[in-house]
Amino acid sequence: MRLAIERSEAVKGRTYPNPPVGAVILDRDGQVAGVGATQPPGGPHAEVLALRRAGERAAGGTAVVTLEPCNHHGRTPPCVDALLAANVSAVAYAVTDPNPIAAGGAARLADSGVTVTAGVLADEVSRGPLREWLHKQRTGTPHITWKFATSVDGRSAAADGTSQWITSEAARADVHRRRGVADAIVVGTGTVFADDPTLTARLPDGTLAERQPLRVVVGEREISHEAKVLNDDSRTMVIRTRDPNEVIRALSDRTDVLLEGGPTLAGAFLRAGAIHRILAYVAPILLGGPITAVDDVGVLSIAHAQRWRFDGISPIGPDVRLSLVPA
Amino acid sequence: MRLAIERSEAVKGRTYPNPPVGAVILDRDGQVAGVGATQPPGGPHAEVLALRRAGERAAGGTAVVTLEPCNHHGRTPPCVDALLAANVSAVAYAVTDPNPIAAGGAARLADSGVTVTAGVLADEVSRGPLREWLHKQRTGTPHITWKFATSVDGRSAAADGTSQWITSEAARADVHRRRGVADAIVVGTGTVFADDPTLTARLPDGTLAERQPLRVVVGEREISHEAKVLNDDSRTMVIRTRDPNEVIRALSDRTDVLLEGGPTLAGAFLRAGAIHRILAYVAPILLGGPITAVDDVGVLSIAHAQRWRFDGISPIGPDVRLSLVPA
Ligand SMILES: NC(=O)c1ccc[n+]([C@@H]2O[C@H](COP(=O)([O-])OP(=O)(O)OC[C@H]3O[C@@H](n4cnc5c(N)ncnc54)[C@H](OP(=O)(O)O)[C@@H]3O)[C@@H](O)[C@H]2O)c1
Ligand SMILES: NC(=O)c1ccc[n+]([C@@H]2O[C@H](COP(=O)([O-])OP(=O)(O)OC[C@H]3O[C@@H](n4cnc5c(N)ncnc54)[C@H](OP(=O)(O)O)[C@@H]3O)[C@@H](O)[C@H]2O)c1
Repeated sequence: MRLAIERSEAVKGRTYPNPPVGAVILDRDGQVAGVGATQPPGGPHAEVLALRRAGERAAGGTAVVTLEPCNHHGRTPPCVDALLAANVSAVAYAVTDPNPIAAGGAARLADSGVTVTAGVLADEVSRGPLREWLHKQRTGTPHITWKFATSVDGRSAAADGTSQWITSEAARADVHRRRGVADAIVVGTGTVFADDPTLTARLPDGTLAERQPLRVVVGEREISHEAKVLNDDSRTMVIRTRDPNEVIRALSDRTDVLLEGGPTLAGAFLRAGAIHRILAYVAPILLGGPITAVDDVGVLSIAHAQRWRFDGISPIGPDVRLSLVPA
Repeated sequence: MRLAIERSEAVKGRTYPNPPVGAVILDRDGQVAGVGATQPPGGPHAEVLALRRAGERAAGGTAVVTLEPCNHHGRTPPCVDALLAANVSAVAYAVTDPNPIAAGGAARLADSGVTVTAGVLADEVSRGPLREWLHKQRTGTPHITWKFATSVDGRSAAADGTSQWITSEAARADVHRRRGVADAIVVGTGTVFADDPTLTARLPDGTLAERQPLRVVVGEREISHEAKVLNDDSRTMVIRTRDPNEVIRALSDRTDVLLEGGPTLAGAFLRAGAIHRILAYVAPILLGGPITAVDDVGVLSIAHAQRWRFDGISPIGPDVRLSLVPA
């Protein structure tokens, strides 16, 4: 399953509207016979690709998949058919498919005499590679991650407004990797006026990554036609509103949205309960002064603090990345 | 050496003015024959205690010590004499004694035909159990740790001033353990007026720890005679100044000082360059609002940020403890 998870991580962001799934076929002796991950829409699903690579060796073997194999005809035939045709004797998967149309795969496999094990590393998969897709399936709205860079004393810029760079090159490279799998990056007009960012996903050598998220600018003010966010590196959507719900509606066809706005926009989304993960990149520096990553999260007293839960604490170069999900 | 380090940690805070040292005696076969750690002043040093426990088995064995064995007559005879008398054939130690009076132990052992290895896990020991003592030896002034509790968005209280409790019981227990090994806890009058803290080291059951640090209140205003910090649980020093250097002078006979003040006092010490370690207890909550752990650290622009280095990132219950030392 770890190998399947790894493969699914590698295709994250490229499978929309399909989930990024990983699959491994073990032969009768438990040896890896084939691996696969969801291909871009129209291409084969993970199981089919892994079966194709395993060939004859799949018969009597085990399929290990991060998501319950699908049981419906979409652009491709059901994966369950392929697994039965290959004569696997067992299927182990992590997460049950929440989509009523695609679900039922496990039952059909079991009814056909295949040994089915559900829930293998389910937590890891549903918190990790499938998190955004599962959120979208369950709620119909995109999963929104708020990312910010901060000093250890909670500042997102120095007193004079300078903030380039708070975090290290290593942390910024991590952000660019994260952008590379996102469907959209959202900022407020304030960030465009202050920093004139390009908001692209770039590789460590500074060139553009293959895949670019949609760039989204939120706010009523008009931004300059010269703003870098409007250049040709990727597409850009300007949403002239201050209402987070209008932004969410405009992005309803997206799965994985990254909010990189300043304190005003972050506060608006946090007050609206519209943030599903927080990624804080904390640098080992002190700045002091009035500029914090968020101003007003709608909390007056400690008893009403917004409560989250750390689900990842990782050193990234000289910095620390703290990942939080709702408590 | 790990066992020796562990033993030295256990006596931290109880050995003043001697360093908290740990020692392990291995017999000829490399088996642990005796362990020891520095006893309160007048009691035996670590090596002597470990040798006593090893008895005959020390002969031909190895002594593993966190600090170079001392070579001078203080309240107790030199440890080097005890090691030679016990006929150990090798001595391995972590950190060289910076004290010119006590130093020279390694040379005397080597001259007497003992195999001496220096620098074993030296970094770990000098960053860990001996850090405060080494700082004091080198500079003549106490080592000052600034401890603060903060939300993930950098607030040390909610907008209405409430801050009890930002962090979890587990984090607070960790602070009480840390207080239990400190020589003094320092706050400003502002914290006494706002929170009326007791500033004692308490055990998880709420009772007082055996050893209590000196409580220190800094500021020109007079505090109430009813203030809890003046109760009988420990001694208290009131220093009517706003000058960090005056505080440092008043505590010049201490080794390990914990600064637990609010933003004003923390800022004053940080601007004076008088902080040697930062301990940030970060809770997975969002608060927003105007109250941060420190206001002004003397930095105007990102180029002049105070640069530190993470030297410890530990989950403590639901919270994260970030430890920083100067870069
Ligand atoms: N450290 C970090 O991670 C990070 C990240 C981004 C930015 N920053 C810093 O943040 C600063 C910019 O802060 P900012 O707060 O102005 O940026 P922002 O939050 O990106 O943009 C604020 C603007 O968004 C619009 N807006 C959208 N929804 C709103 C709402 N519900 N309520 C009010 N306004 C809304 C308003 O513009 P209209 O008036 O046009 O409606 C508002 O002025 C810069 O110094 C930048 O360097 C830091
Ligand atoms: N989250 C945490 O870790 C934490 C820890 C402690 C406190 N707090 C919070 O911090 C708030 C209290 O903040 P605070 O800043 O008033 O507390 P503080 O820093 O402990 O005390 C400030 C007072 O110290 C005196 N002082 C000493 N040196 C000074 C200097 N160089 N410059 C100016 N004043 C100096 C002044 O009092 P005089 O006027 O008497 O001279 C000043 O008003 C409370 O809300 C408390 O809950 C939070």
